[in-house]
Amino acid sequence: MTDTNQDPWLLTPGPLTTSLETKQAMLHDWGSRDAAFIEMNARVRDALVTIADAQGSHVCVPVQGSGTFAVEATLGTLIPRDGKALILINGAYGKRMAKILDYAARSYDSIETTEDTPVDPASLDAALSNDPSISHVLVVHCETTSGILNPIAEVADITHRHGRSLIIDSMSAFGAIPVSAKEIRFDAIMASSNKCLEGVPGMGFSLIREEVLAECAGNAHSRSLDLYDQWKSMEANKQWRFTPPIHVIAAFDSAISQYLAAGGVQGRNKRYSNNCRILIDGMRALGFETLLPDNLQAPIIVTFKMPSDPKFDFEAFYDRLKDQGYVIYPGKLTVAPSFRIGCIGNLGEQEMNGALDTIRKTLSEMGIETGTPVSA
Amino acid sequence: MTDTNQDPWLLTPGPLTTSLETKQAMLHDWGSRDAAFIEMNARVRDALVTIADAQGSHVCVPVQGSGTFAVEATLGTLIPRDGKALILINGAYGKRMAKILDYAARSYDSIETTEDTPVDPASLDAALSNDPSISHVLVVHCETTSGILNPIAEVADITHRHGRSLIIDSMSAFGAIPVSAKEIRFDAIMASSNKCLEGVPGMGFSLIREEVLAECAGNAHSRSLDLYDQWKSMEANKQWRFTPPIHVIAAFDSAISQYLAAGGVQGRNKRYSNNCRILIDGMRALGFETLLPDNLQAPIIVTFKMPSDPKFDFEAFYDRLKDQGYVIYPGKLTVAPSFRIGCIGNLGEQEMNGALDTIRKTLSEMGIETGTPVSA
Repeated sequence: MTDTNQDPWLLTPGPLTTSLETKQAMLHDWGSRDAAFIEMNARVRDALVTIADAQGSHVCVPVQGSGTFAVEATLGTLIPRDGKALILINGAYGKRMAKILDYAARSYDSIETTEDTPVDPASLDAALSNDPSISHVLVVHCETTSGILNPIAEVADITHRHGRSLIIDSMSAFGAIPVSAKEIRFDAIMASSNKCLEGVPGMGFSLIREEVLAECAGNAHSRSLDLYDQWKSMEANKQWRFTPPIHVIAAFDSAISQYLAAGGVQGRNKRYSNNCRILIDGMRALGFETLLPDNLQAPIIVTFKMPSDPKFDFEAFYDRLKDQGYVIYPGKLTVAPSFRIGCIGNLGEQEMNGALDTIRKTLSEMGIETGTPVSA
Repeated sequence: MTDTNQDPWLLTPGPLTTSLETKQAMLHDWGSRDAAFIEMNARVRDALVTIADAQGSHVCVPVQGSGTFAVEATLGTLIPRDGKALILINGAYGKRMAKILDYAARSYDSIETTEDTPVDPASLDAALSNDPSISHVLVVHCETTSGILNPIAEVADITHRHGRSLIIDSMSAFGAIPVSAKEIRFDAIMASSNKCLEGVPGMGFSLIREEVLAECAGNAHSRSLDLYDQWKSMEANKQWRFTPPIHVIAAFDSAISQYLAAGGVQGRNKRYSNNCRILIDGMRALGFETLLPDNLQAPIIVTFKMPSDPKFDFEAFYDRLKDQGYVIYPGKLTVAPSFRIGCIGNLGEQEMNGALDTIRKTLSEMGIETGTPVSA
């Protein structure tokens, strides 16, 4: 913890702390036609399909850029120009999908619930009954705005029963919260290299039902973000259409191999759940209140209400923690002052307890009494 | 050369061989709000503006993804929906810009010359005289399809005289072929991290005239590729809108610092020109013919005509060189069989001579007589 060579621990929604092994995988150069790189790329794509239990039904189409690029690419490729989306919104990432569709000139409706409330399956059911023109339903798996887990299994059942297509933004959940394509019916699920699979940032990916993607030629609104074209080209020659982020892919390949060795989704879920438990218990003992009740909380990132004590200044608190090696994150809620602490990345009990110790010490230095409720 | 820890040398159009120092810069993790990362990002942006001698006139807007993402983002952001582009085409990258505009639904005309002929300023002049609806001229600086250098100074003069806006795709030339915004009038010039500046792939950037960019709100066809929004947001809080490829930026920061220490554009141009001279002289001595006369050849990548000797099998030749540590590149010409050898990346005399020795030996092993013309 006091090793000055150790970068600060990132208790954030990402980019995250990655293992040294993952970063060391980037200490090489490969040509984009190199057989070793092509194998690496195929291995990553296959592993991602397997993690979602989607072998035989879905294909993995990677794309350069951040997770948002993968979301935009998926929406633009799958939703035809005359399609209509229904977006279930309870945070910034649902709203971002709406904004993406504004750019791509796709029509949509939305059903919005507050940031501390899961999306509502009954409203979805009613909306799909009332509007047969809705072709696609869009939902965020874990809304990192609050850290809430949305009921995607129920959303998937209802969407499937109405014969519509489901697209899941699982950016911050993929790989840590089990999703089986054999049990949850979706046409696409998107995530990125730098979240729960603990690679470095620089690429996103989408797992898309192959028979759906095969019908998507000509839909995309962007050349760079055309996942049909990316898929067809990669199937043909195993290469990316445009220069791939090779070092990022090498790191991702290494990170996935470490992920599988550590028990895959079960192992990752267990570690993150334990991190989350330690964090919430410890913070509550210090008097902090979580935004969400435990049954709505995903083991990804936790939103804490801002303490009402006037001696608590968030920027000062943030800086003091950062200086002692722990990076937390500001809130993104529109409804109430808050801050967030992540449970994901290459972190375990020792780092969570270290963060709590540092928070306790910092509060004391700031003259804030702990052990009694500090939240507003 | 026989060190098995050395990755093969990449004599390609990119991704390229980078220095160990550049790759080692990726052995850390940073949060995206981290002051150290924000400084790094600002340093990279400032350096790129300075390299183009564009301080005070242009701003650097980086974007996640490959160079093509930066090209698409620039075209979509700068060309309004009712604008019209004129594309000067003499290879695959000019054609790619046309394809991008098809997706973005921007109207355009093109003037095409053959792959071994520079774009033609006189035709441009005539076209701009004839069609006042053309708002933007698009040109590729060095067309890596052939390796040809296009006369961008003349193109810029003519475009400026007609009061139109010039956008230069300088992907494979930026940083190695001097361009001063004070002498060559352009509204945008695009390149990427992984070409002549010798970073790793994963981001592109565009240097855009600030007073032009300030008028571009609402133009973009893609949320992820909206450089107006990316710029405004980065000016406001110094951060990227969406997760930045942090390790790629760290490597780029290191690569640029090495670039400046090695003499900037003069130093880079000198080393690459020397690489190119050694390569062309050596290959000609072996009997190969270049596609281009020396006065049209950029010191970036050289196209060689495919030998007519039936004993010359390119795939076998490629594999043998690769096995001995030198990766060359297939041709991209539509007009004639060819292959390409790059002069860029972290390569110098020793590697160019090593490549030539290996080529000589390989030809001999393949039973091909050298020293006499081998080209078709």
